[in-house]
Amino acid sequence: MNRRQFLQAAALAALAPSFTWAVEPSLASDPATLQRWLKIAEKLKPTLHQTAKTPRTIVQPAADATRFLRWRMDSVAPAAGLNQRLLHEGDFVILDFGEHLTGHFSFTITGEGRGIDSPVRIKIVLGEVPAEVAEPLEKYQGSLSRSWLQEEVMNIDVLPATIDLPRRYAFRYVKLQVVGISPHFAVRFDKARAVALTSAGRNHQPLPPGTPEPLRQIDDISLNTLRDCMQTVFEDGPKRDQRLWIGDARLQALANYDTFQNYDLVKRCLYLFAAFPREDGLLPACMFEHPRAMRGHEYIIDYAALYVAMVLDYARATNDWATAKDLWPVVRRQLEILSGYIGPDGIFSAHPNIWVFIDWKEGLDRTAAMHGIYVFALRQAEELARALKDHAKVSEYGDRLEQSTAAARKAFWDAEKQVFVSGPNRQVSWASQAWMVLAGIATPAEGAATLEAVMKQPDAVRPGGPYLYHYFVEAMIRCGLKAGALELVQTYWGGMVRDGADTFWEVYDPANPMLSPYRDPLINSYCHAWSCTPAYLFRSGGLL
Amino acid sequence: MNRRQFLQAAALAALAPSFTWAVEPSLASDPATLQRWLKIAEKLKPTLHQTAKTPRTIVQPAADATRFLRWRMDSVAPAAGLNQRLLHEGDFVILDFGEHLTGHFSFTITGEGRGIDSPVRIKIVLGEVPAEVAEPLEKYQGSLSRSWLQEEVMNIDVLPATIDLPRRYAFRYVKLQVVGISPHFAVRFDKARAVALTSAGRNHQPLPPGTPEPLRQIDDISLNTLRDCMQTVFEDGPKRDQRLWIGDARLQALANYDTFQNYDLVKRCLYLFAAFPREDGLLPACMFEHPRAMRGHEYIIDYAALYVAMVLDYARATNDWATAKDLWPVVRRQLEILSGYIGPDGIFSAHPNIWVFIDWKEGLDRTAAMHGIYVFALRQAEELARALKDHAKVSEYGDRLEQSTAAARKAFWDAEKQVFVSGPNRQVSWASQAWMVLAGIATPAEGAATLEAVMKQPDAVRPGGPYLYHYFVEAMIRCGLKAGALELVQTYWGGMVRDGADTFWEVYDPANPMLSPYRDPLINSYCHAWSCTPAYLFRSGGLL
Repeated sequence: MNRRQFLQAAALAALAPSFTWAVEPSLASDPATLQRWLKIAEKLKPTLHQTAKTPRTIVQPAADATRFLRWRMDSVAPAAGLNQRLLHEGDFVILDFGEHLTGHFSFTITGEGRGIDSPVRIKIVLGEVPAEVAEPLEKYQGSLSRSWLQEEVMNIDVLPATIDLPRRYAFRYVKLQVVGISPHFAVRFDKARAVALTSAGRNHQPLPPGTPEPLRQIDDISLNTLRDCMQTVFEDGPKRDQRLWIGDARLQALANYDTFQNYDLVKRCLYLFAAFPREDGLLPACMFEHPRAMRGHEYIIDYAALYVAMVLDYARATNDWATAKDLWPVVRRQLEILSGYIGPDGIFSAHPNIWVFIDWKEGLDRTAAMHGIYVFALRQAEELARALKDHAKVSEYGDRLEQSTAAARKAFWDAEKQVFVSGPNRQVSWASQAWMVLAGIATPAEGAATLEAVMKQPDAVRPGGPYLYHYFVEAMIRCGLKAGALELVQTYWGGMVRDGADTFWEVYDPANPMLSPYRDPLINSYCHAWSCTPAYLFRSGGLL
Repeated sequence: MNRRQFLQAAALAALAPSFTWAVEPSLASDPATLQRWLKIAEKLKPTLHQTAKTPRTIVQPAADATRFLRWRMDSVAPAAGLNQRLLHEGDFVILDFGEHLTGHFSFTITGEGRGIDSPVRIKIVLGEVPAEVAEPLEKYQGSLSRSWLQEEVMNIDVLPATIDLPRRYAFRYVKLQVVGISPHFAVRFDKARAVALTSAGRNHQPLPPGTPEPLRQIDDISLNTLRDCMQTVFEDGPKRDQRLWIGDARLQALANYDTFQNYDLVKRCLYLFAAFPREDGLLPACMFEHPRAMRGHEYIIDYAALYVAMVLDYARATNDWATAKDLWPVVRRQLEILSGYIGPDGIFSAHPNIWVFIDWKEGLDRTAAMHGIYVFALRQAEELARALKDHAKVSEYGDRLEQSTAAARKAFWDAEKQVFVSGPNRQVSWASQAWMVLAGIATPAEGAATLEAVMKQPDAVRPGGPYLYHYFVEAMIRCGLKAGALELVQTYWGGMVRDGADTFWEVYDPANPMLSPYRDPLINSYCHAWSCTPAYLFRSGGLL
């Protein structure tokens, strides 16, 4: 999230204009229930798989305008040659593990020379992509804290030493640099190794034989992305933020059902959110795990809506309807709160202080898409109500669906342009079309036409990142545009592959490789949960 | 030591022109004996006293050209107010413990704000003097490694946290700075504390009642200096180097006999040196303790000579003549090696590759002073031989004393100028006069005249630091110039007191406050062993 949005969220917390804060106690906010839910979540906390990893090569960055973020890595020696290098003040060596991993890093360091007569000060920089270890981090000016840059400076008094860095990192590259040392000795690094951590196990559903190599490659990278984000929760990015967000978690869960099948991790996350609602029952957009489980301070109204889908996805994937039933009051409460935003015209109307995410995209009018997500959530809720035999709710959600579908068609359908529009300027965006389709507001035929139309329209607002691309691809599949959807995956996710991705990125715009929602691409997350969805699209998603 | 001298020492190790390296085994280099001596040393390793310390005030540095190193510290609040400060990115707070200490530092840190949504990166700078925490350390360009600058950068993932810095520091001031943090929260520091470490116990011999306050103050600071350098060996400086050097240790031992009386620590140090001679039996100038006891790579010929005095001092102070007897082969070997440098003219003539220390002073001609130290060592050795009833050596050393005294008077006494001179340019220095006196080459009457003369001579080479000032003061006392000696202590050590010393400094030149043998005063040691001797001079030294 950017600063403006944070401030909006902060203002919301202060104003809460549309909600009753002093609500009557309900099951969804009864302290004993919340406590019980937290206990369920904590019991499901996974033990992480640990895998020893060693670096493959010693590499050297080279400025290269044709490459992603303008850096290339050249192999210069096998990593086994690490201990053959004697490093003096200012010298550095960069190790390449050959793959992205989330975990710990350790090494040994020995001194050699006339006398080990000073401490040695070393700097360790860990990077997911070459630029992070190639660029001087001192110049960082991004809007997120520089403390997220994976950099450590340490003074080692006694050599030889074995250094196990206590923190966890997300990295492929490790730069070891000597920044302070006596002129009377130099150091050798050796035994560099990592322990990769994940709560993902093996992939239970490989792609069918004969799947073309480029798709297989996209799938592998999707799975690596998911694997490295799967820790004791579904993290959004293991390098930065490291939190559990509803929007990311729902997509991770979808990919996980088809592959690693760690159902308990999804259940844990569903209960974590449920255990920490705002006072009025609205779910927080994200959760912290440390120093203890607690809700984040952000509320994203479309994320609360997608929790409904996440519960239904889970029940369908696992047949664990008991959990869906246990969480049913939470789902109902989200719908109550969401429905409170429906204006006299039947359209979802978020107060300007409310954070409506939809996509990382400045200038996007979110009205139509948000309404679409609300209707989408109503549809999931209706199905849940039916499965849980809550007949009153089946009927209530059915009525609401009918009304809001009709209102949406009236408000957003532009008969002349034959696309859905959003906002006072009747903005045409990929986001609006996608959510009108996924909500079932557009018929499949209309959807197919509008999706194809918007893709051809140069001034339509395109997605800002993989999160919305995912929903757009899903919308295409739903409208029968499988070939186009596959092409889009190959163009977009395949573009990251061609740009050297080991795991898929938080943001990616082929036309603007330096894009960052935080004013500096060094702080972008290059292993980001919401980008792992090709693994799902290729399986249950129906793309292949 | 400076770089040039290091390189000289390195060249010596390679050339060793005057020594026979392949010597016949003797008791002083028999492996079983060396092993036994090391065991004695290790058994005597002290357990350190630990004292909890809390900071007294929060201070703010102010540029002030009239103050030492151009910085002043202004008190701004009691240290108890630390937790009332909320620190954002870039903010810092400086704690003043009100006294110098050697030990560990710890604190707690908590986050406060809308959300603790990033790690916090903090920088901790510890300083013995205000300049070390006031100046930006990035600009450091000294000749010793910047890794000695007491600075840590750490990333803290989870707040609240209790941080116990694992390294040991020498400090009075601690700067805590937030260098990276999310804009959504700030931090508070609290529970800042230190654990001071020393192997010094209580002072068994306070100054007599009625001692004037300025002298009492000098004595207190001497004792604090000694205390903070007394760790598991007599360190030269607890901030930087942290090694056991013969030249420093002898002076520390003298001050210790009169005050803390940790005799075992002296014994440990004597045995440590003895256990690690060079292959030819020459003692190393210094010892490392970590990762295991081992000799340093420097050989200082005047330090080897002073080991002889250190053994005699110890035996006199403790009446432990058994130890003197055990180490007698080491003492004899030093004398053999030293005597090998006597040229046909009877004068000690060091090969240019040999490190002759005498004093931190560029341009000093060391010939006369070195010869003086050799004669001084012969005299101590003769006395030891007498006590240990080694009659052959009493006679040998007696003969050598006679010869070298006569040779020195011939070579160094300038009858016209009525001072001792040194080198081809007949340089007049404080160093030469002092050592001619201490060696007994000058009669007390001659000594008194030359010492007074040299002090009045503006172009005489003055001492570069406290180490030589000490020997000059001792020489004055020996010649009956007690009043002048006391005045010199009050001028020189008292000058450091007036400049704000909490412990006495490695180098000090009132005429050049920015003096550093390492090209940057920030790297100077401000609690330095060899500067603690007023505590001895005021007691056994006979100054009061």
